[in-house]
Amino acid sequence: MTTSSRKIRLGAFAMGAGHHIAAWRLPEVPHDASTNLAHYRQLAALAEEGLFDAIFMADNSAAETGPVAARSGGSVRFEPLTLMANLAASTTRLGFISTVTTTYNEPYHVARKFASLDLLSGGRFGWNLVTSDNALEAGNFGREEHVAHANRYERASEFHDVVVGLWDSWEADAFLRDKAAALYYDETKLHVLNHRGKHFSVRGPLNAPRSPQGRPVVVQAGASEAGRELAARTAEVIFTAQPNLAAAQGFYADIKARAAKFGRPPEATKIMPGVFAVIGKTEADAKAKFAELQSLVDPQVGLGLLSRMIGNFDLSAYDLDGPLPDLPVTETGQRSRQQMFTEFARKENLTIRQLCLKIAGGRGHFSVIGDAVQVADQLQAWFEGGAADGFNIMPAFLPGGLADFVRLVVPELQRRGLYRTQYEASTLRGNLGLPFPKIH
Amino acid sequence: MTTSSRKIRLGAFAMGAGHHIAAWRLPEVPHDASTNLAHYRQLAALAEEGLFDAIFMADNSAAETGPVAARSGGSVRFEPLTLMANLAASTTRLGFISTVTTTYNEPYHVARKFASLDLLSGGRFGWNLVTSDNALEAGNFGREEHVAHANRYERASEFHDVVVGLWDSWEADAFLRDKAAALYYDETKLHVLNHRGKHFSVRGPLNAPRSPQGRPVVVQAGASEAGRELAARTAEVIFTAQPNLAAAQGFYADIKARAAKFGRPPEATKIMPGVFAVIGKTEADAKAKFAELQSLVDPQVGLGLLSRMIGNFDLSAYDLDGPLPDLPVTETGQRSRQQMFTEFARKENLTIRQLCLKIAGGRGHFSVIGDAVQVADQLQAWFEGGAADGFNIMPAFLPGGLADFVRLVVPELQRRGLYRTQYEASTLRGNLGLPFPKIH
Repeated sequence: MTTSSRKIRLGAFAMGAGHHIAAWRLPEVPHDASTNLAHYRQLAALAEEGLFDAIFMADNSAAETGPVAARSGGSVRFEPLTLMANLAASTTRLGFISTVTTTYNEPYHVARKFASLDLLSGGRFGWNLVTSDNALEAGNFGREEHVAHANRYERASEFHDVVVGLWDSWEADAFLRDKAAALYYDETKLHVLNHRGKHFSVRGPLNAPRSPQGRPVVVQAGASEAGRELAARTAEVIFTAQPNLAAAQGFYADIKARAAKFGRPPEATKIMPGVFAVIGKTEADAKAKFAELQSLVDPQVGLGLLSRMIGNFDLSAYDLDGPLPDLPVTETGQRSRQQMFTEFARKENLTIRQLCLKIAGGRGHFSVIGDAVQVADQLQAWFEGGAADGFNIMPAFLPGGLADFVRLVVPELQRRGLYRTQYEASTLRGNLGLPFPKIH
Repeated sequence: MTTSSRKIRLGAFAMGAGHHIAAWRLPEVPHDASTNLAHYRQLAALAEEGLFDAIFMADNSAAETGPVAARSGGSVRFEPLTLMANLAASTTRLGFISTVTTTYNEPYHVARKFASLDLLSGGRFGWNLVTSDNALEAGNFGREEHVAHANRYERASEFHDVVVGLWDSWEADAFLRDKAAALYYDETKLHVLNHRGKHFSVRGPLNAPRSPQGRPVVVQAGASEAGRELAARTAEVIFTAQPNLAAAQGFYADIKARAAKFGRPPEATKIMPGVFAVIGKTEADAKAKFAELQSLVDPQVGLGLLSRMIGNFDLSAYDLDGPLPDLPVTETGQRSRQQMFTEFARKENLTIRQLCLKIAGGRGHFSVIGDAVQVADQLQAWFEGGAADGFNIMPAFLPGGLADFVRLVVPELQRRGLYRTQYEASTLRGNLGLPFPKIH
């Protein structure tokens, strides 16, 4: 594939008020953004106007409680699959990618829900397979202790294989629906899974037919050793948090090399780093907006976010204007994020307060703050520099930040020939340029 | 409540091609009805045109296999919550009631999905709480044996209490969203469940706010002793299969008496028997349509349906033109349906073949076949005769059978003052005339 024909893929990471932790406090953000259907309809419409491959949502089956949660917003939200099923009705080409954890679900339910969504959207869904790093979720599913890191990934790997096996239950032409002969399906085109593994026994078949894109797109975001191995073997899209170009290049090369080991060509996995974006008509506008957001960070809330992201380590006993203490390696949380934030603090000699502010926007993702040309320059450098096949755009605030990207940055990328000017296909898989999957 | 102000409640039981087992073979039924979104959109639009309280869908997390399944259709379908989430976008007043089993789910997931659906629909959802009687489902969730009847209901009862407890996590005015003060919610209006029971430990709170109707409507359909007790304690709407007026009157009186024992007034539980309906402009038209459907029943498929509904008892070794054998009481299937069908066979001295044809339409529900006046007469007799607060209409074929009901029977019921001429409320609970629930 030549550089000129290779195009940037874009995801719109939709999250309530936006990705900056203080976004909900901005005057122009709807006060109830995380539970406002009209707001999400607008995000989907903007993403489709911007020819994004997909809108993406993270997920979490728990609400935080306590004084920090009470001050931080985001404790309530839509369940993403029900929300996306609704948004599919007001869009025609936009893809939908939702996180669903393998830690507290059954593979039959997950396979079935995504198959149904894929069917009703005409082949526009993707599943972001994750393991749960949120200890609060454990308490909502009858577990005292959160599941340890290694076990989570072993279960996730088997979970993936069961789900894909169920999606492959029926060949595309299995359903004859011959009214005269009273023959609904061809039994020779049905594949009963009969899975028996360490974590799951699932007979099958799935009670849903094959979708217009064959099966939903498999997405992953794990960054640890176990996460990378699973992604290299199974993921078709990889979301990742990379703080800078060098780190992103390293991750990109590593994943493509691991994938090759599994017999997968480079184009079979699209690597899309998250990009925290604040865009202005001018650089000064963008910087002023970011400064406004930073000024709205409640210190208690900033500290709570940091504490959670380094493995629920309580920092309240430490001096906010002192250094980050040495941390025990988290067994249950996000190890890669803990390591990244510790490096931030050490390299830049940040106080806890400064580290809180540094992560309050992008949470460790690459941050771009500037005008359309500056932002496009950065994305182009990553895309052409072996760091990315596309990006998962994380607007600082919503819907305005997404509108800025669509109306300012998208035309600039199009002028450079780096981005589509119309959708190529009617399915998510088709737009991403992923092959139509064969039945295993 | 006087007779003149009391109105019939209506549910539209939407099931792919229709309720007659041979409906998919009718020329006018879409060949892929069970997986055709446009078809379901049309059903929802018809139900809303007919001012139905709700559209209802049954569910089943398994596909039957084997030669009978291959000849019978219906082995693949949408997952109802994703489908209904989509249909909520093309309707404004219609309610949505979906079955979700308590046997193979986690209460946090169920509470969350319905809360999200209730929020995005403006308070139009209801949950039909069931226990799974389908042995095939067991094999898709890692169980060798199906869960026995008594255990299923014990689990269901606790499951209900957890779900309702989670729905009551937040008071309606808990969310302040005070941008200036950085205060998102009022901690004193949050109720953490902290449930610890025999089957579940669930901490809570739910990560969804209270919905416009307070919480989703709880619906049930159990007819056994355990099912009736649970319904009397917890159900706000009860679907039921009653073959005739006398049986329905007995059920109605029994449930209302049981509910009184739990301190619940008669109007707190709306009893809505299923009505299998074939409607024509004339009685002759209706009878001809029914005869056409009966002529399309494949004998193998009819026998398969009967076998499944009497507890997966294999009848293939018996003479089709001989009597139904004595059956062992089912431990894992639908006991009440097994008993009903055995009584049909004995009372009417039916052969197996005749019994198959008798249940091929309504599956044991009350059947009405006639013109609008005849159908309205029957519904009125039940409604005014202490047998029903409303009906769950089961059209023999779709969408035509629902259109017939909406355009022929609804106006007749309106002329008699028995049915609304416009929606009274914007929520399902409001239209059903159920009280707005208080937090426990």
